Amino acid sequence: MEGGTALSPRPANPELARRAVETVAAIVEERGPGAVTVVEVAKRVGYTAAAIYRYFDSRDVLLDRTIDYGVKRLADAIDVEALAAETDPVRRLRMLAHFYVSWGAANPGMYRLIFEHPVPVRPTEETRKKRQGALRNLEAEFRRGSDDGRLRGVESPPAEAMLLWSSLHGIVSLTVSGRLFGPQPKRGMAAQRAGELAEALIDHLEPYWKGETS
Amino acid sequence: MEGGTALSPRPANPELARRAVETVAAIVEERGPGAVTVVEVAKRVGYTAAAIYRYFDSRDVLLDRTIDYGVKRLADAIDVEALAAETDPVRRLRMLAHFYVSWGAANPGMYRLIFEHPVPVRPTEETRKKRQGALRNLEAEFRRGSDDGRLRGVESPPAEAMLLWSSLHGIVSLTVSGRLFGPQPKRGMAAQRAGELAEALIDHLEPYWKGETS
Repeated sequence: MEGGTALSPRPANPELARRAVETVAAIVEERGPGAVTVVEVAKRVGYTAAAIYRYFDSRDVLLDRTIDYGVKRLADAIDVEALAAETDPVRRLRMLAHFYVSWGAANPGMYRLIFEHPVPVRPTEETRKKRQGALRNLEAEFRRGSDDGRLRGVESPPAEAMLLWSSLHGIVSLTVSGRLFGPQPKRGMAAQRAGELAEALIDHLEPYWKGETS
Repeated sequence: MEGGTALSPRPANPELARRAVETVAAIVEERGPGAVTVVEVAKRVGYTAAAIYRYFDSRDVLLDRTIDYGVKRLADAIDVEALAAETDPVRRLRMLAHFYVSWGAANPGMYRLIFEHPVPVRPTEETRKKRQGALRNLEAEFRRGSDDGRLRGVESPPAEAMLLWSSLHGIVSLTVSGRLFGPQPKRGMAAQRAGELAEALIDHLEPYWKGETS
């Protein structure tokens, strides 16, 4: 599906598509989303810019497919087995938060591309849903916990998920831009402190979620 | 001081400096921080690019001075009189959150420039402090509330401020990029919903801050 839709079929060259997207991902990590040009991508993968444009209509479409690629990587960062072994809803939320913050801190360029870059002009419905994966994972946890009475303070699982996701995003965003714990060279330490901040947030919210507040 | 430091004095042309910065601010609102070029700024203000470069060493320095300008605008968004009339610490935090989120949602381009753009290479210490204004305002509130016993759940005012600011930033960032409530045309509605989300966050955290959790 990369680079192709039912409305605009592309010549089959999955190798070009794959390498172009991986190259964009590398440039984004090196110098941020603003530094991506089709000419540089073409040069790095050894194709002409025209060949890239035959496959991806525009730079925006190329960035869009790279976001899809990044979103898949983010989804892969969830340790599914470890998550399945945990039944406590707050501990499951804590694990999801941990996977999210760790991945974001380790992939700052891609994180910014996925979540700060202006929204694409024409995402497919499937793409749009995929990109809300983090939100939907959290929402599923809140729904389950609300349904089984273990998170009896949660009135609206979608609203609760939106609030937690926004907060985690804020932590990651300010961390990867160097505003919370200093610039890039200190990244390892920053990732750890971002994780601790996410833990503290969940500690604070846990009594509310469980309905234990007076 | 705009554009000048003790080490590299600039010819006095405050009119050029002011108009260049305001022009960058306009471009940033129109098309985002990535769209700013010195050539376009020069064209719009009616000076040569060389004149701009005489005043601002580089595009980065020009963006940096524009961030200073934006930070000042953000600080001006605080209704100081209304804030002074309020004594309850949580209601004061709520007001600060409201000013912050409203301003961010209304100035998405500048918000992104101030808080998502990679950190400047050489901010002065004064600039660095100014840019942490939102964080320091929140910290002062938590400190006061912790000291007078009204926020007895707050163990570390700096950590609490960092957590609240990160969360508010996440709400604003996902709102202005169109990821939380849809893209730009719905901005008015999005700003309102972002404000409601910030309110909900404070509702959730209030019992913790007050030490009312079990």
